[in-house]
Amino acid sequence: MSTTTTAGEARARYRDGLVAPTSGAARGHTQANLVVLPADWAFDMLLFGQRNPRPVPLLDVTDPGATSTVLAPGSDLRTDLPRYRVWRDGELVDEPTDVTDLWRDDLVSFLIGCSFSFERALLEAGVPVRNIEQGRNVSMYRTNRDCRPAGRLSGPLVVSMRPVPAALVPLAVQVTARMPQVHGAPVHVGSPESLGIDDLDAPDYGEAVQAAPGDVPVFWACGVTPQAALMASRPPFAITHAPGHMFITDATDADYREP
Amino acid sequence: MSTTTTAGEARARYRDGLVAPTSGAARGHTQANLVVLPADWAFDMLLFGQRNPRPVPLLDVTDPGATSTVLAPGSDLRTDLPRYRVWRDGELVDEPTDVTDLWRDDLVSFLIGCSFSFERALLEAGVPVRNIEQGRNVSMYRTNRDCRPAGRLSGPLVVSMRPVPAALVPLAVQVTARMPQVHGAPVHVGSPESLGIDDLDAPDYGEAVQAAPGDVPVFWACGVTPQAALMASRPPFAITHAPGHMFITDATDADYREP
Repeated sequence: MSTTTTAGEARARYRDGLVAPTSGAARGHTQANLVVLPADWAFDMLLFGQRNPRPVPLLDVTDPGATSTVLAPGSDLRTDLPRYRVWRDGELVDEPTDVTDLWRDDLVSFLIGCSFSFERALLEAGVPVRNIEQGRNVSMYRTNRDCRPAGRLSGPLVVSMRPVPAALVPLAVQVTARMPQVHGAPVHVGSPESLGIDDLDAPDYGEAVQAAPGDVPVFWACGVTPQAALMASRPPFAITHAPGHMFITDATDADYREP
Repeated sequence: MSTTTTAGEARARYRDGLVAPTSGAARGHTQANLVVLPADWAFDMLLFGQRNPRPVPLLDVTDPGATSTVLAPGSDLRTDLPRYRVWRDGELVDEPTDVTDLWRDDLVSFLIGCSFSFERALLEAGVPVRNIEQGRNVSMYRTNRDCRPAGRLSGPLVVSMRPVPAALVPLAVQVTARMPQVHGAPVHVGSPESLGIDDLDAPDYGEAVQAAPGDVPVFWACGVTPQAALMASRPPFAITHAPGHMFITDATDADYREP
């Protein structure tokens, strides 16, 4: 899809059946992670986000049963993502392209900030983004750090890693610190072993990304963290986006950049 | 009480029976608004905070029944505030100094940022704070702006007003913008009538504060907003702090100041 497509046009194409990763679609519009849970679990999830704002920055939380969000009036959360994941008791059971048949009046949707937003800001500041250069999904790892639990929800912090030239690490920190609603500043620079990561070439999610000589691994809190909590905490039913197949909002990345 | 008392000492004195406003106590330690609701209403309150972060910046939310907070290990939320307010069906029914007898296993406590934190930052930056100069409680007003509702909770935005010398308004904006967890930048500068405020000398809460010649009224989102929502939405039971009688945390105002 063209990067100049509008957000509404992009959502309409996915709704009409297009299945493709959303990276680069409707450029400049904020893409969001999606987690959908029954109302019975919604307080736990909302509290998990409140207590863990770096990995789980909540951009919007809907009323029970709502099928749209204030971030994209006229959208339909049941159809407008290119691909979903359906979870039962913490197990992945399906990856449909439409969840209209599964929708229930008690479902609450959580729209969560995504690092796609700050990758553009890094590029604009002159920081190379290796996963984009290499056409690969970013590398993500479960860490040895626990999130602060919330009710029945608990799980490890998941981080994304981007290799950054050593001289540009301070700039990368400053650029992303200005975007706290899309994960903000890195949580860790260098020393993967102290996060419990044995092998950077074997990510738990996404793809291995090659570092250039002089690059340092920089780790940001990652929006996959709530999916890891769902797998660990096993709610009876949940829907999420499929990795890389995000919800495209009408908001712009500039909206989430602090002055 | 001396301004150099530690946070733990201050809480112990209130626990032992001292009743006094907390302004200036344990200087430098972050003071918080308190809202306590039954678990049945906790999702609505948490969502109200998520949707209205300027007036309702959530610093911590406890597990149901918990009597302490990570912001002050060893504290007791039932005894460590100098005075409480008890609400039934949205009506104020009592102002006790201890709520141990009223505590229930299903109560969830919300600790909410307070503008006391940014008043210190304003003074340090050279911005005069007229209510402090005049030894008065800050002026607060219900506005004609509605908060974004959340479930059964809705209500008007409440603002605090501080007169600021015109030349220092930009500095006041910048200093407070760096403290988003204690209400952040002003929501409105000048023109009280466009917020629906007819008479600055007749505040809805707190006291009238006199402006100096050349002062401009500057309005910040206010932590009384959730109390206004409780009065409008009438949950069967709630406990809050009494105005000016805050919970003193171990956190410091510097913790909530962005670099």
